Amino acid sequence: MWTHKLSVRTGDRPSITDLTVRVEEAISGLGDGLLHVFLPHATAGLAVMELGSGSDPDLLDRLDELLPTDERYRHRHGYPGHGRDHILPALISPSLVLAVLGGTLDLGTWQSLVLVDTNGDNPVREVRLSFISG
Amino acid sequence: MWTHKLSVRTGDRPSITDLTVRVEEAISGLGDGLLHVFLPHATAGLAVMELGSGSDPDLLDRLDELLPTDERYRHRHGYPGHGRDHILPALISPSLVLAVLGGTLDLGTWQSLVLVDTNGDNPVREVRLSFISG
Amino acid sequence: MWTHKLSVRTGDRPSITDLTVRVEEAISGLGDGLLHVFLPHATAGLAVMELGSGSDPDLLDRLDELLPTDERYRHRHGYPGHGRDHILPALISPSLVLAVLGGTLDLGTWQSLVLVDTNGDNPVREVRLSFISG
Repeated sequence: MWTHKLSVRTGDRPSITDLTVRVEEAISGLGDGLLHVFLPHATAGLAVMELGSGSDPDLLDRLDELLPTDERYRHRHGYPGHGRDHILPALISPSLVLAVLGGTLDLGTWQSLVLVDTNGDNPVREVRLSFISG
Repeated sequence: MWTHKLSVRTGDRPSITDLTVRVEEAISGLGDGLLHVFLPHATAGLAVMELGSGSDPDLLDRLDELLPTDERYRHRHGYPGHGRDHILPALISPSLVLAVLGGTLDLGTWQSLVLVDTNGDNPVREVRLSFISG
Repeated sequence: MWTHKLSVRTGDRPSITDLTVRVEEAISGLGDGLLHVFLPHATAGLAVMELGSGSDPDLLDRLDELLPTDERYRHRHGYPGHGRDHILPALISPSLVLAVLGGTLDLGTWQSLVLVDTNGDNPVREVRLSFISG
């Protein structure tokens, strides 16, 4: 199985980071198969969505409402409200599979592969790729 | 890698469309392996759930509460409140993997594979299948 | 394709059950590849998250708020409010893929594979594993 790791800067604020180009570069030449994309982190997730017309800040706003940054959590490490970041991966999974055709991610026209990270205390994230030929 | 595309009519209202039979027909005879199911769309997702006893309209109702159809979104294309449809795939992913055993989807008794589409402005959707033999 | 089934006791209350050790034991010696983990149940889901510092009860609390246990659901089987359990798998999918490297789950330091089950009426659950070598 072909594997590869990427290091991605997500910064010190809640963020949605486009991984599409980085992943496309990494898998270039791999042919056809299934690509497993994975974050080895407990406070981030992966999504496939449209970027660039307001939907990325919209998602962060919705997450602020669905998983409020306040004192309601038992989890008490990190900044106040950090407990929400540990719920995030149950709703936005750190594991995602994409098809690769001719060495290219098989995405729709408006889709990007993104890393959703509400935790500003980890400014650099690792992305693990595993590829199985079909 | 075996691949196949389905065209699915989801209609002009928020909908949950059962894909199970269509996908079963498409993969018939493929043996054992992993099937990647994917929507190349930015406003729809895939789920595995029980249908037929009220849970599908229940899900649409919950999505109306979790992702309200109103003016809160930055995304300003489409009908008023359409921004919610662009959040949907972060919570209900357009990517899903199912096991295939003896050419049949390995689902539980009460499970169906469904397409969740809150966006009535795209009445026809494409479903992409990719299969890797085990 | 290698397949295996586990029987897991989740108990008669909403629960988050760590599957990591059980799955590690099952896949021991399998080498490198992709592991599909699947629940053939309509009222439970799988997640990868940190356990042991309050986040598991935090998740159950959040689910109580996002999917309230009350009479709002059309689904009328089971205990009052059981309709919420049928929405759960749309938000926390019963299907998950993990990479296996050298016969070990490729998880991050703080990550566990867990079964999220808000339905106390099914105290024993089945977990299906399918593995494809890379």
